[in-house]
Amino acid sequence: MCELLGMSANVPTDIRFSFAGLARRGGDTGPHRDGWGISFYEGKASRSFHDPQPSAHSDVARLIRNYPIKSLLVIAHVRRANRGRVGLENTHPFSRELWGRSFVLAHNGQLKGIKKWPTGSFRPIGTTDSEHAFCWMLDQLRNSSPALPFVARLDKTVGELCRRLGQLGVFNMLMSDGRSLYCFCSRRLCYVTRRAPFGTATLIDEDLRVDFAKETTPSDIVSVVATRPLTRDETWTEVPRGSLIAFRAGEVVAR
Amino acid sequence: MCELLGMSANVPTDIRFSFAGLARRGGDTGPHRDGWGISFYEGKASRSFHDPQPSAHSDVARLIRNYPIKSLLVIAHVRRANRGRVGLENTHPFSRELWGRSFVLAHNGQLKGIKKWPTGSFRPIGTTDSEHAFCWMLDQLRNSSPALPFVARLDKTVGELCRRLGQLGVFNMLMSDGRSLYCFCSRRLCYVTRRAPFGTATLIDEDLRVDFAKETTPSDIVSVVATRPLTRDETWTEVPRGSLIAFRAGEVVAR
Repeated sequence: MCELLGMSANVPTDIRFSFAGLARRGGDTGPHRDGWGISFYEGKASRSFHDPQPSAHSDVARLIRNYPIKSLLVIAHVRRANRGRVGLENTHPFSRELWGRSFVLAHNGQLKGIKKWPTGSFRPIGTTDSEHAFCWMLDQLRNSSPALPFVARLDKTVGELCRRLGQLGVFNMLMSDGRSLYCFCSRRLCYVTRRAPFGTATLIDEDLRVDFAKETTPSDIVSVVATRPLTRDETWTEVPRGSLIAFRAGEVVAR
Repeated sequence: MCELLGMSANVPTDIRFSFAGLARRGGDTGPHRDGWGISFYEGKASRSFHDPQPSAHSDVARLIRNYPIKSLLVIAHVRRANRGRVGLENTHPFSRELWGRSFVLAHNGQLKGIKKWPTGSFRPIGTTDSEHAFCWMLDQLRNSSPALPFVARLDKTVGELCRRLGQLGVFNMLMSDGRSLYCFCSRRLCYVTRRAPFGTATLIDEDLRVDFAKETTPSDIVSVVATRPLTRDETWTEVPRGSLIAFRAGEVVAR
């Protein structure tokens, strides 16, 4: 079992509050001590920070918690290894270039038999089910279109591919092309959308409270997706099992 | 003009001393204020830290200077933009997966007409000559072999591709597949190989001196490649213009 965290926003937003809660689950309040990673988009490009060390005790995680990288789209993951040794090559999120954009994926679950599915010219570097599934999806996407499709068409194709993967086992997933945050729920995934009037929120995993009214402007819209609710005083919506939702600019736009 | 830094070693080695010198050239002792990046290999995988901020004043660069990530193979770059806006998508080193390994490239120079060369299914995310040249090389490599070739064959192919690129302008380059550090010199590139008996070295750009005898064991072999010598009290060897050299496990193995 791993934990996922995603963010979609309509203004560059600081993920530190949510990441602080997630990072604590990496070997401290949670059992996910086998590495962690986080990817920030800036336009079509993304940058990732990976560490095979537990996030609760990682110097790189400490940097992220203290360093206000603002982004419109973030995907993060803390890992409890079930398949594949603990090492950089097996640390999520995974990223690949497709259609001249950076695609990023993080996954929680196991997919029985996935290693037999073809991945074309996308080859896994590590040995996880997750990276293999990502390579399969990217190869299917590339075969479906010579260039980046319109969002509605990509939403549909990603949904179909996720449902096929979901038949192999547990496939809770966050993926992005830098435009949309795709969230597929096989067992467990929930989200909260914050907008005006903003309230305050308290992290479940760390003694940290934030007043979003002080941190935002009235037009800001920010959605946060996570395996389990990160805050105790907000209402988190569960993503229905077997379904994909897409966020763009902080809002649910397709489900 | 950008500055390149590469390291190849036979034992996991701390790059901090050399990086401290390079980072100072990013907007402090040098004019390379348009971002920087560094990639560390761990087996077939690599992790990169990128920042469009000048390295001399970057929080991420400060982390790297203070954080002992040990690696057998490192490629770093500080950028002075000539083509392509300052932004994450144009920040070296670039990386792509090929043959199930992470390939990383950093480049210094300009290549006239490169944008007309085909890149197959590798598409640039940003707008630099360098990333376009990298995509062209990877496509040529993939067409040359269905799987990772033996090192001697890859050495030869990389050399041929680099010489073709060198005909378009200035192509000082560091590239790696995680096994070999390839260094092509079009105008300016030099290296030093450190081995027992180890001496001391003083950085040219920062008031920092290290006694390698205290940091190493007698069997360690470490080569450092850079655009200009980083230390004042060691003998740096210039890579001949128009030629490729390859390092494996810290030593020059092909030229």
